[in-house]
Amino acid sequence: MNKHNPLDHVRVVLSHTSHPGNIGAAARAMKTMGLRHLYLINPRHFPDSQADAMAAGADDVLRDAVVCGSIDEALQGVVFTVAMTARLRDISIEVKTPREAMPLLLQQAATQPVALLFGTEMSGLTNEEMGKAHVLVNIPAHPDFSSLNIAAAVQVMAYELTVAAQNYLPVAPEIQPAPHEQVEGFFAHMEKTLFEIGFLTTQNPARMMQRLRRLYARARLETDEINILRGILSIATEYNARLRARYQQEHPITPKQPEDISKHKDVREH
Amino acid sequence: MNKHNPLDHVRVVLSHTSHPGNIGAAARAMKTMGLRHLYLINPRHFPDSQADAMAAGADDVLRDAVVCGSIDEALQGVVFTVAMTARLRDISIEVKTPREAMPLLLQQAATQPVALLFGTEMSGLTNEEMGKAHVLVNIPAHPDFSSLNIAAAVQVMAYELTVAAQNYLPVAPEIQPAPHEQVEGFFAHMEKTLFEIGFLTTQNPARMMQRLRRLYARARLETDEINILRGILSIATEYNARLRARYQQEHPITPKQPEDISKHKDVREH
Repeated sequence: MNKHNPLDHVRVVLSHTSHPGNIGAAARAMKTMGLRHLYLINPRHFPDSQADAMAAGADDVLRDAVVCGSIDEALQGVVFTVAMTARLRDISIEVKTPREAMPLLLQQAATQPVALLFGTEMSGLTNEEMGKAHVLVNIPAHPDFSSLNIAAAVQVMAYELTVAAQNYLPVAPEIQPAPHEQVEGFFAHMEKTLFEIGFLTTQNPARMMQRLRRLYARARLETDEINILRGILSIATEYNARLRARYQQEHPITPKQPEDISKHKDVREH
Repeated sequence: MNKHNPLDHVRVVLSHTSHPGNIGAAARAMKTMGLRHLYLINPRHFPDSQADAMAAGADDVLRDAVVCGSIDEALQGVVFTVAMTARLRDISIEVKTPREAMPLLLQQAATQPVALLFGTEMSGLTNEEMGKAHVLVNIPAHPDFSSLNIAAAVQVMAYELTVAAQNYLPVAPEIQPAPHEQVEGFFAHMEKTLFEIGFLTTQNPARMMQRLRRLYARARLETDEINILRGILSIATEYNARLRARYQQEHPITPKQPEDISKHKDVREH
């Protein structure tokens, strides 16, 4: 990758796209703005002649497209993810305009991979997918008819990115954010730990985990920090295990609390 | 029309569109940004099922679309026209970015009809069409692959217009520009006059007329000014006719200059 052009660090990730024509049109939109890296999460039809037809000369973008089986695969190595949403919903990840978000994306793209994440034609991104983003972006649209075609949305975002790139002045990044897979490893570790220590006590931990994801998405964790936090998690579990062992030693009859914990562990694993 | 929403004064004019799918996708792009008035100059296929399919809910925009036989018909009543160009050519009408041009368009749209003019898929707008615009706009794109799909270009421009509208503060317009047809009437009068007085002396007057169009496009003529200028043109013709009559009286043998003039008049009329 060319280190001098931040656009070379930008991935466009399309999740579960239904219509191959949209993939082709998105590839064309990307190429007009100098974006080259297309990632497709479980596209319904790809490769496809409709995609080729709509690409209209951006066949190199389609040819080099990376087809992935999961969002985590598509975001491997990515340090900053912007997810699109048509709805201004109650998820409380920060929602920005394209004009606000693209300079941030570009700043990170100066040195490491970043991603623009687009959902399906019908329902957009899932809450789980949006939970993996650092910033949500809503393209301002008419309230009665706010659903842009995916390729049109790609065009608008890529255009904003190009305009931002023209005004771009590289500055030393304040932090060196950790790649996606390290952050996901941390969240998995945290969720497991929160069950083990009995903090997560409902059968639906998703909402609490979303809130924690938001917090850390804002913080933009660095690798060192993740190591520290995971160290804390490990020790918390050990401490808890020691407490439980001592408690069981002192109260030989099976107590109530450990039962709860094991029940929730089961829930998480199924 | 709602006088309080300048977007209701914006026409999207597509000239000689080949693919009906692009018309439908453009209608969708318009509607997402609250634009409603679509004008089609000699579309190859319209109405068409592909247009309906790509409109995806913007069928009201297609239903109300105005099909025109000429650009002058499509620009009837319009006081400010922005034309798209993919090329930064030597036409020297001012070329602006979308971000520079949309606030200007919006300012005029506060009180009177304005137009966004898009050319064909293959070749864009003709020089003649661009000569009828006040401002050219080039969407910044990658130099190796700068050809946006028409609907994608409509989406970008409509998006910029929406963002401009959000920051819009109405101010009293400095001038009251004349509608398109009055300006065209003036240019026709001027061209005729320039032949009659012998100013246009080549067989290809287009280049000179383009230069004059540029000048007056920058000036944004008002109705009163057009009346003054046409008055000048009329008097110049009469003066020239008197001069010629006197010359012929004094030089009974057919002189060279009047021959030239009549030859050029013939060229223009064929």
